[in-house]
Amino acid sequence: MRTRAAVAVEAGKPLEVMEVNLEGPKPGEVLVEIKATGICHTDEFTLSGADPEGLFPAILGHEGAGVVMEVGEGVTSVKPGDHVIPLYTPECRTCPSCLSQKTNLCTSIRATQGQGVMPDGTSRFTTLDGDPILHYMGCSTFANHTVLPEIAVAKVREDAPFDKICYIGCGVTTGIGAVINTAKVEIGAKAVVFGLGGIGLNVIQGLRLAGADMIIGVDINPDKVPMAEHFGMTHYLNPNDVDDVVAEIVNMTKTPFDQIGGADYSFDATGNVQVMRAALECTHRGWGVSVIIGVAPAGAEISTRPFQLVTGRVWKGTAFGGARGRTDVPQIVDWYMDGKIEIDPMITHTLSLDNINEGFELMHAGKSIRSVVVY
Amino acid sequence: MRTRAAVAVEAGKPLEVMEVNLEGPKPGEVLVEIKATGICHTDEFTLSGADPEGLFPAILGHEGAGVVMEVGEGVTSVKPGDHVIPLYTPECRTCPSCLSQKTNLCTSIRATQGQGVMPDGTSRFTTLDGDPILHYMGCSTFANHTVLPEIAVAKVREDAPFDKICYIGCGVTTGIGAVINTAKVEIGAKAVVFGLGGIGLNVIQGLRLAGADMIIGVDINPDKVPMAEHFGMTHYLNPNDVDDVVAEIVNMTKTPFDQIGGADYSFDATGNVQVMRAALECTHRGWGVSVIIGVAPAGAEISTRPFQLVTGRVWKGTAFGGARGRTDVPQIVDWYMDGKIEIDPMITHTLSLDNINEGFELMHAGKSIRSVVVY
Ligand SMILES: NC(=O)c1ccc[n+]([C@@H]2O[C@H](COP(=O)([O-])OP(=O)(O)OC[C@H]3O[C@@H](n4cnc5c(N)ncnc54)[C@H](O)[C@@H]3O)[C@@H](O)[C@H]2O)c1
Ligand SMILES: NC(=O)c1ccc[n+]([C@@H]2O[C@H](COP(=O)([O-])OP(=O)(O)OC[C@H]3O[C@@H](n4cnc5c(N)ncnc54)[C@H](O)[C@@H]3O)[C@@H](O)[C@H]2O)c1
Ligand SMILES: [Zn+2]
Ligand SMILES: [Zn+2]
Ligand SMILES: [Zn+2]
Ligand SMILES: [Zn+2]
Repeated sequence: MRTRAAVAVEAGKPLEVMEVNLEGPKPGEVLVEIKATGICHTDEFTLSGADPEGLFPAILGHEGAGVVMEVGEGVTSVKPGDHVIPLYTPECRTCPSCLSQKTNLCTSIRATQGQGVMPDGTSRFTTLDGDPILHYMGCSTFANHTVLPEIAVAKVREDAPFDKICYIGCGVTTGIGAVINTAKVEIGAKAVVFGLGGIGLNVIQGLRLAGADMIIGVDINPDKVPMAEHFGMTHYLNPNDVDDVVAEIVNMTKTPFDQIGGADYSFDATGNVQVMRAALECTHRGWGVSVIIGVAPAGAEISTRPFQLVTGRVWKGTAFGGARGRTDVPQIVDWYMDGKIEIDPMITHTLSLDNINEGFELMHAGKSIRSVVVY
Repeated sequence: MRTRAAVAVEAGKPLEVMEVNLEGPKPGEVLVEIKATGICHTDEFTLSGADPEGLFPAILGHEGAGVVMEVGEGVTSVKPGDHVIPLYTPECRTCPSCLSQKTNLCTSIRATQGQGVMPDGTSRFTTLDGDPILHYMGCSTFANHTVLPEIAVAKVREDAPFDKICYIGCGVTTGIGAVINTAKVEIGAKAVVFGLGGIGLNVIQGLRLAGADMIIGVDINPDKVPMAEHFGMTHYLNPNDVDDVVAEIVNMTKTPFDQIGGADYSFDATGNVQVMRAALECTHRGWGVSVIIGVAPAGAEISTRPFQLVTGRVWKGTAFGGARGRTDVPQIVDWYMDGKIEIDPMITHTLSLDNINEGFELMHAGKSIRSVVVY
C-alpha cells in the first residue's frame, strides 16, 4: 500500500513529507494506522545527527497511537480495529529479560530494531522508486501507516483520544514510571526534579500520585514554573539564583528533627551530566536514590566521588520509566481516562503532518512542551 | 587509670607503644578492656597521612573485641563483665538515620567522632605529661583499655574467642554485609568480586552463604586464588591475562538461554576507581547491581556513561556492610560460632602490641590477610 510519511532523508536536514510504499505485515507483525504522534527529543537527537547510532533515510517517530488495520500470520493478541500504542520497548514475555521480572528492557528484537529493520532483517518501507527507507525505534510513527511486531503494540481502550494518549507512548510513561517503577517513591517522601520540560512535568505528576510531601523543581528557565506548579511542584529553585544547588536542596529538606538534610529521591530530566551529579549529591546520606532519565550527549560521562555511594546514596537510571509496555501502558491510559493523571495541558501544539518541521522548531525555541501531529 | 597503647604520633611515622592516661567513662560511656584488635587498611590509610581528615596524635584501631570493665552513669544495655565489640558505626536507635530503617549510618555522634573526641567534645586519653591524645573512629582499639559511647558497643556471647571475633568489628561484617544487606543477593545469582584481600574473601563467603551459583574472583595477584577458593570462589580471572575484563565477565556469565550476559551482582574490594567502573559495567543490562566497598584515594572520582544506568544497572556503596552494629554484629558472632562462616584462616598473623608495626609491614608487603594484636 501507499501512505504518507515525514522522512528523515539526511542528518541535520528537515523532514520531507512524501508518499511512500508500505509492505503488509509479515508473520507476527501488525499494520497500524497511526492517528496521532508526539515529537520527542529523541527524534530530534537522531535527526540532528548527534546520535552516533542514527541511520538514514528513516521514518522517525516513536510516540504514537492508532488502530490495527491488518494482522500477520500467527498474531493472536490484537485484531483489526483494536486501538494500540506502539512500543519502542517491546514486551515479548519470553526472553531472559522479560522472564527475569527485574527489567522492562526486553531484548528479543533489540538487534534488528537498532538496525532500523523488522525482526526478519528487512524494512517494510520503500520510496516510490523502490529504495529502502529504514524503521526507527521499531515504531516509525511519523508515517500515517506503519508495521510493527505484535510484541511492540499495547492494546488500549477505545474511548481514549489518540491525540492525547499518544504521549503515553513515551514521555508520560517515562516520567511517571521513573517514580513508581524505578525509584518506587513512597508516601511522604521529599523529592527533587531537575528539568521542568515534558519529562520533568510527568515526573512531578508521578510524585503527586505517589503521595510525595515535598516536590522541588529545579530549572534555569523560570517560565516553566506555572505549569510545574499545576502538576504538583511544591517548591521551585532556579540554579542561577543560588551559589550551590546541592547545599540549597540539602537545607530545604532539613527538618527540626533531621538536621542532615537531603532529598529522599531525585530525578534528572535535563540530560546534562553536571546536573546528574548534582542530582545524586543532593540526596540524603544513607538512603537517597537518584534516577537518571535524561539522555546525555554522545560520549559524555557522569562522575562523582565514590564516597557519595559508600555513604548510602544509590545511582540508577530508567528507560521508558521501567514500564513493561503491553502490561503497564493500558493501565496508564486508564489513569488518564479516570482523571488520576493529566495530559491535556502538556499538549501545547497540534500540527498536521505537512507542518511537522514546525514541531521541531517549537522544541528548539523551548516554546512547546509537546507538539502532536494529528493525521 | 594508666594503660598501654600504640600511639600514632605523626603521619607517616611508625606507631609508638607507650603508657598513656585514660580517664574513666562519663555518663553514657563504657570502659572496655580490649583483648584483641585487627589492623585494617583504614588504620594504614590514616597513619600514612593519605586521609585528608586524619588527626594526630591519636590512638588508631577500630577492629577490636574485649570486656566491659566499668560503665558510666545511665548506661543500661551493658554491664561490667560483658563481652563487646566496639562499633565505629554506632547504633543509637533514636536519630533520624536509625529511625529511617533505611540505613545503618547512625549520625548521633558523627561530628565529635570525626574530630577524635567523645560526644562531650573531649578526649579520655592523655600522655603521661598530660597532653591530649585523640580517639579514632570512636574506637581506639590500639589501646589495651579504651572508653566508648554505650551506643558504640555490641554485646556478644562470652564463649567466642576475642582474637577471631575482633575481625567482625570491621572486615567480616563489611564483606558479608555488603552481600546480604546492601546487594541483597538471592539464591542462584551470578556474582563477581574484584579484589581478593580480606574484604573480598568475606564478600565471597557472604555470597556462598547467600547461595550464589557463580562466584567469580578478580585479582591481579594469583597468589590469592587458593584462599579465595577455600572461601567459595568458583571462577578466577586475572585482569593481566585478558584484553578486556568486562567483556570476559560478560562472556563467562552467558548461558544458552541468556546470550546477553553480565553479572547479577558485582563488588569492588580494591579501592581503585577504574576497577569500580569495570565492576559496574560488567553487570547485567537491565538489573545488574554493583556495590562499592573499597575506599578510594582522596579526591579520586568514579565515572561512566549515564547510558550504563539508563539501561538498568544500579550503582551503590556500602559502609560497614550496611550492618546495624548492636543488632547485627551479635548475630554474625553466632554465625561464626555455629560454623556458618569461617574466620580462622583469614587471621594469618598474631602479634603482641609491641610488634604492632610489623602488622603494617606485613600489610604493605601483601603477606597478611589479617594481622591481629592480642593484648
Ligand atoms: N530515559 C528515557 O527513557 C527517556 C525518554 C524520553 C526522553 N528522555 C530524555 O529526557 C530529557 C528531558 O526531556 P524533555 O522532553 O523534558 O526535555 P525539555 O527540553 O522539554 O526539558 C528540559 C528542561 O531542562 C531545563 N534545563 C536545561 N539545563 C538545565 C540545567 N543546567 N539545570 C536545570 N534545568 C535545566 C530546560 O530549561 C528545560 O526546561 C531529555 O534528555 C530526553 O532525551 C529520556
Ligand atoms: N566500605 C567499608 O566499610 C570498608 C571497610 C573496610 C575496608 N574497606 C576497604 O576495602 C578495600 C579492600 O580492603 P582489603 O583489606 O581487602 O585490602 P587488601 O589490600 O587486602 O586487598 C585488595 C586486593 O585487591 C587486589 N587488587 C589491587 N588492584 C587491583 C586491580 N586493579 N584489579 C584487581 N585486583 C586488584 C590486590 O591484589 C589485593 O588482593 C580497601 O580499599 C579498604 O579500605 C572498606
Ligand atoms: Zn521519546
Ligand atoms: Zn522480552
Ligand atoms: Zn576497617
Ligand atoms: Zn542513630
